[in-house]
Amino acid sequence: MTVNRQWRLARRPRGMVQSSDFTWTEGPVPSVDEGQTLVRNLFLSMDPTQRGWMSRDTYIPAIAIGDVIRSFGVGQVVGSRHEGFKPGDLVQGGVGWQDYLLSDGGGPLPLAKLPPGTDIPLAMNVLGLTGITAYFGLLEVGRPEAGETVVVSGAAGATGSVVGQIAKIKGCRVVGIAGGPEKCAWLTEKAGFDAAIDYKAERADRRLRDLCPDGIDVFFDNVGGEVLDMVLDQLRLGARIVICGAISQYLDGELSQGVRGPSLYLRLAERNARMEGFAVNNCPERYEEAEAALAGWLASGQIQQHEHIEHGLERFGETLGMLFTGGHMGKLLLAP
Amino acid sequence: MTVNRQWRLARRPRGMVQSSDFTWTEGPVPSVDEGQTLVRNLFLSMDPTQRGWMSRDTYIPAIAIGDVIRSFGVGQVVGSRHEGFKPGDLVQGGVGWQDYLLSDGGGPLPLAKLPPGTDIPLAMNVLGLTGITAYFGLLEVGRPEAGETVVVSGAAGATGSVVGQIAKIKGCRVVGIAGGPEKCAWLTEKAGFDAAIDYKAERADRRLRDLCPDGIDVFFDNVGGEVLDMVLDQLRLGARIVICGAISQYLDGELSQGVRGPSLYLRLAERNARMEGFAVNNCPERYEEAEAALAGWLASGQIQQHEHIEHGLERFGETLGMLFTGGHMGKLLLAP
Repeated sequence: MTVNRQWRLARRPRGMVQSSDFTWTEGPVPSVDEGQTLVRNLFLSMDPTQRGWMSRDTYIPAIAIGDVIRSFGVGQVVGSRHEGFKPGDLVQGGVGWQDYLLSDGGGPLPLAKLPPGTDIPLAMNVLGLTGITAYFGLLEVGRPEAGETVVVSGAAGATGSVVGQIAKIKGCRVVGIAGGPEKCAWLTEKAGFDAAIDYKAERADRRLRDLCPDGIDVFFDNVGGEVLDMVLDQLRLGARIVICGAISQYLDGELSQGVRGPSLYLRLAERNARMEGFAVNNCPERYEEAEAALAGWLASGQIQQHEHIEHGLERFGETLGMLFTGGHMGKLLLAP
Repeated sequence: MTVNRQWRLARRPRGMVQSSDFTWTEGPVPSVDEGQTLVRNLFLSMDPTQRGWMSRDTYIPAIAIGDVIRSFGVGQVVGSRHEGFKPGDLVQGGVGWQDYLLSDGGGPLPLAKLPPGTDIPLAMNVLGLTGITAYFGLLEVGRPEAGETVVVSGAAGATGSVVGQIAKIKGCRVVGIAGGPEKCAWLTEKAGFDAAIDYKAERADRRLRDLCPDGIDVFFDNVGGEVLDMVLDQLRLGARIVICGAISQYLDGELSQGVRGPSLYLRLAERNARMEGFAVNNCPERYEEAEAALAGWLASGQIQQHEHIEHGLERFGETLGMLFTGGHMGKLLLAP
């Protein structure tokens, strides 16, 4: 018998996720009713935002206790009584931590068809929400101008690596902050960053000052904590900080109670600078614009990408944890 | 003999200012050399930013140890060998904590002439940098639209009270946060705020939720600390936070080391919201525009103002402290 393996939310995690936060269940593959479609999951996407969904209502409702853990992903339709989907279709959306998704196509992360022949990991990385987040977050919120200095934290991560490469395309000087020599080498040798700081091996504040003697114009922050304060202390007049995430803060605190706030936020007033948040789900009507630009840069070789693929649904919790401990490079995916 | 009494910086304050941070000196009134002008100070302005100047370089250099404490103020020229000033002129600028200023007209806060007949307290309040800060901070950074909900902290202070009234003129719903029944009554009865929260007597977070059931569009923050987190937790999508100051934070920490950062700053990402700093000295070329608008609203009675005038140069330290403990209402001035 083919089973549907699922991870369900047992309780709201405190700090980093632990195996006891989840319940593993095995059950029959569901049958398809009128208006439903059944999807076999192929790749699940690891995103820091999932940690938020486990805790509280954010830009979408929290995952309910007992529900299958919500996750972006790609699968293939294996049965359908829904007019929008037929067997064989590749679909992307909120497929969940499970082998099979039974869906009416809707929900907070609705299903969307991918064209036949799509490169699936690419569609989940540069051409997916990761790339779209990088595109709008940098260009619409950060608004870098040619010649400006752009700093990216979590620079070897899925979003950060694309952000830095778009900034290079726009004529900026780009400094990445990442952990470990392998990631830093990839940033400068493959992804074209002007410099990379290994925060695990170097005094990042000093290196940042050396590399940005005239200060920082744009900061794209995936990390929060000390790194954010370090940059706040080196802002140029009129600087922009894009708040995308704070992966350094998911290990310690309970997000609903808040994290370590940037203690140098008053530098914003001294520098006429701004700090602006960006969640990609607020501009779905503009995804095509971003996808077209990103596809063009991929085709011309101006954007390099990297995926890290783990295997085994049973390893979901520890794979998600790699996002916060930095055990991966580029886009982190799980093939169930 | 007429003496010139002066307060000089003895050391950089830790936390709130103490009398031992300053040295009192008495000396002769200086004589005027070629290119200099001598000013008798009439009113000194109390501004939270002065606390910053005592600590570190901000948007202007720190006050040097041993120098007269820098302060905005208004005085009258009593002697001049400077072609720009003649005896009898009223001047505004960085006059310092002293009876007499000897100046070449320049420096980080240069002297500017006021027209004869100027209402001096008004020129230091709504028609001075206080009003200009309120005007550009709210309109250029906060960008309120008619019908939106605007919240102001430090609402009965010099800047906050003008901010709320401009927001009303622009058709917004305005909620002020202030300390004490007298201030709250002034806000709703005289200044036309829709509501005022007495944070000393009420659970401000609950009252804020009751008064802003659909969330907050614009927050003008003079206070920082808990109030800032409270508002971050109640932002509407696309909200704007204007960071003008953080008077709650000057009592505890050393500013150069940072203050309590907003632990809910990641709400900016969830809400596509921004937090932007504003220091008025970055747009001197536009002061006239603000002054003209503010003068019009004063003339038509659409802006009410309030001054609190203390007396005696010897009381400067304790008077400045009132800014942070909330012992005043409206613009706080000292007549030396």
